[in-house]
Amino acid sequence: MRVLEVRETAIPVAAAMANAAIGFDEMTASAVAVRTDRRVGGAPVIGYALDSVGRYAHGGLLRERFIPRLEAAAAVEIADPETGLVDPMRAWPVLMRNEKPGGHGERSAAVGVLDAALWDAAAKAARVPLWRLLADRFNGGGADGTVEIYASGGHYRPDDPVGALAREVRDGMAQGFRTFKIKVAGAPPETDRARIEVALDAAGEGGRIAVDANAVLDRESAFRMAAMLADYDLAWFEEPCDPLDFALTREIAAAYPGPLATGENLFSAADARNLLRYGGLRKDRDLLQFDVSLSYGIPEYLRIVAEIERAGWSRRRLVPHAGHLFALNVVAGLGLGGHEIAPDASFALGGLPDGWTVDGGRVAPGDLPGVGFEGKANAMAVLGALMG
Amino acid sequence: MRVLEVRETAIPVAAAMANAAIGFDEMTASAVAVRTDRRVGGAPVIGYALDSVGRYAHGGLLRERFIPRLEAAAAVEIADPETGLVDPMRAWPVLMRNEKPGGHGERSAAVGVLDAALWDAAAKAARVPLWRLLADRFNGGGADGTVEIYASGGHYRPDDPVGALAREVRDGMAQGFRTFKIKVAGAPPETDRARIEVALDAAGEGGRIAVDANAVLDRESAFRMAAMLADYDLAWFEEPCDPLDFALTREIAAAYPGPLATGENLFSAADARNLLRYGGLRKDRDLLQFDVSLSYGIPEYLRIVAEIERAGWSRRRLVPHAGHLFALNVVAGLGLGGHEIAPDASFALGGLPDGWTVDGGRVAPGDLPGVGFEGKANAMAVLGALMG
Repeated sequence: MRVLEVRETAIPVAAAMANAAIGFDEMTASAVAVRTDRRVGGAPVIGYALDSVGRYAHGGLLRERFIPRLEAAAAVEIADPETGLVDPMRAWPVLMRNEKPGGHGERSAAVGVLDAALWDAAAKAARVPLWRLLADRFNGGGADGTVEIYASGGHYRPDDPVGALAREVRDGMAQGFRTFKIKVAGAPPETDRARIEVALDAAGEGGRIAVDANAVLDRESAFRMAAMLADYDLAWFEEPCDPLDFALTREIAAAYPGPLATGENLFSAADARNLLRYGGLRKDRDLLQFDVSLSYGIPEYLRIVAEIERAGWSRRRLVPHAGHLFALNVVAGLGLGGHEIAPDASFALGGLPDGWTVDGGRVAPGDLPGVGFEGKANAMAVLGALMG
Repeated sequence: MRVLEVRETAIPVAAAMANAAIGFDEMTASAVAVRTDRRVGGAPVIGYALDSVGRYAHGGLLRERFIPRLEAAAAVEIADPETGLVDPMRAWPVLMRNEKPGGHGERSAAVGVLDAALWDAAAKAARVPLWRLLADRFNGGGADGTVEIYASGGHYRPDDPVGALAREVRDGMAQGFRTFKIKVAGAPPETDRARIEVALDAAGEGGRIAVDANAVLDRESAFRMAAMLADYDLAWFEEPCDPLDFALTREIAAAYPGPLATGENLFSAADARNLLRYGGLRKDRDLLQFDVSLSYGIPEYLRIVAEIERAGWSRRRLVPHAGHLFALNVVAGLGLGGHEIAPDASFALGGLPDGWTVDGGRVAPGDLPGVGFEGKANAMAVLGALMG
């Protein structure tokens, strides 16, 4: 089994919203389709993938370096010799051939989105859901029947900083979510305090609010924010400072008693290891949010899982950033802690597959072969058109 | 003064050679020209830049994100209000608008190559060499009249691992170099030992050999290599291990008495700071090789200089990776430690400007306005064609 053709496009995921670090007016993401020489039920096996959000599409890198390497790879380089099926673990070193060490950004997303499409193809060729394939291969068969998910939103909207937030949180709770993450650090402290109180009120009994500072705070403002947040019972305080400032992360962890969460802007096992070595995070409460497809995909993510377990952490502390259905499969199959969902289904990367329901903040991963994009019309509108 | 148009192309810099990490068969680099609305002597001011080598061209990222931001920038956003001349320090935040923190790779080179072209344009508009402009603005006027340079080569060539090396080192010494860097860790230890001895012999009296392991060694092989290298008096041992493995770097620094050099695969001030905080490097002997144009250009490099001085290091320990004439200007203007040259002038990114001579391992930076590419025919063959 080999890859005959890869197609990609950049889809706009623009919105009139912002977090504390960036606006999303011109945001894009890559959509990828990988056509293989294998047929199932008479149709060619095509693997699909969508980028995570926030780091733009990577069409240039895909076309310049990574798609040519994959299209040129012989079956003997990327397929399992026993089953003949494409094996993304073998394809990964082909994608990374002649790439220097270090510099883990951008290319990590280009490789990751191809890796994700290869896993979709591999699971479809094996006629199993991806979470089942991952559980059998890497987790002793132990997949989670349901996965804890949380709703991610609460961006700054210039027209209505507080009112829209209350509606958004209430809608999330009505959909069955139990935890809702909102943005902070992009407005004056009194506005952020008002937003947190409105969100806590909208979350109601049994609901929880997490806050995300998107890595913009310096030392002084991080401590001021931490002091303000200590007035509330929050699910977690996310990205209080620059993701690579491990010394400041350590200081904040020593001062803030509630859970911290970080890691979505570290894109390799080497960077993850440094966070664990130097960041002073606490195994009993903090969350690690490395993004699977922005971090070179599953082969590198498995190295991250190995690093955190070697350091004595439970993989239940891993709650990957974004990554939609692909990441949900990884969370269920590897038995991780939870999954992030942008609940707005009008957003191509957001929402759950059609007809899924959230119950007590949890969902069951689907039964479609592969990642399951075929059960999500707004994703297939983009992905299905690629090989059309 | 504003940017009217940016053009870029990927130039092949392929060669039948390898270091321990990668082959160069398909290596490319970006060449960039930035046309401004300013005229000097009747001709439009055009800024040129060439990528450093080793991380491929970045045309896709340039076209997708960074060139559009620069072309859309108004003069008020990127020009000095007093002189009216383009100011790359003001253009930098425009280039980085809506970019998330972390993930310092690839985009750092795309931004860096545009930044380099803007500095060429700014110095040409001011009718001064770039090293003079940098010295006046950032170094109290104190530029170095000559710069220490070293020859970088000694790659593995499949046909002739040792004989070609001796000729290469002798040629470098005959050109006036005093230090020659060769590759190690890409062959069995006995071959590397033979290569080192041949190179030391070819360097002769007063010549020095540095060795570069290109970050491929694991803990055990790094210590084995260090033990072997301790038999010789080497200029330095470069990239003994993964650039992000600061703990292993620290262990090697504690065990190896000679100078170490690293940093060329860390592309931000945040990463540089972590190397200083955790890598155990020694201020009295080790070298820091952050690459100026692969690391977001001069604005970020100035933050790196500030970080290392805050940590008590001298800027003379900074010897930037590659970067050809642009980096030579930075080294001379900011008073850094030295500069890397690929002495083979048939290589578009290699050699010195036409007619320059190396004396005692040092060169004088030229007097042409800007970076000085106009004095180097093989560079202008590529750059001059961009706006042709």
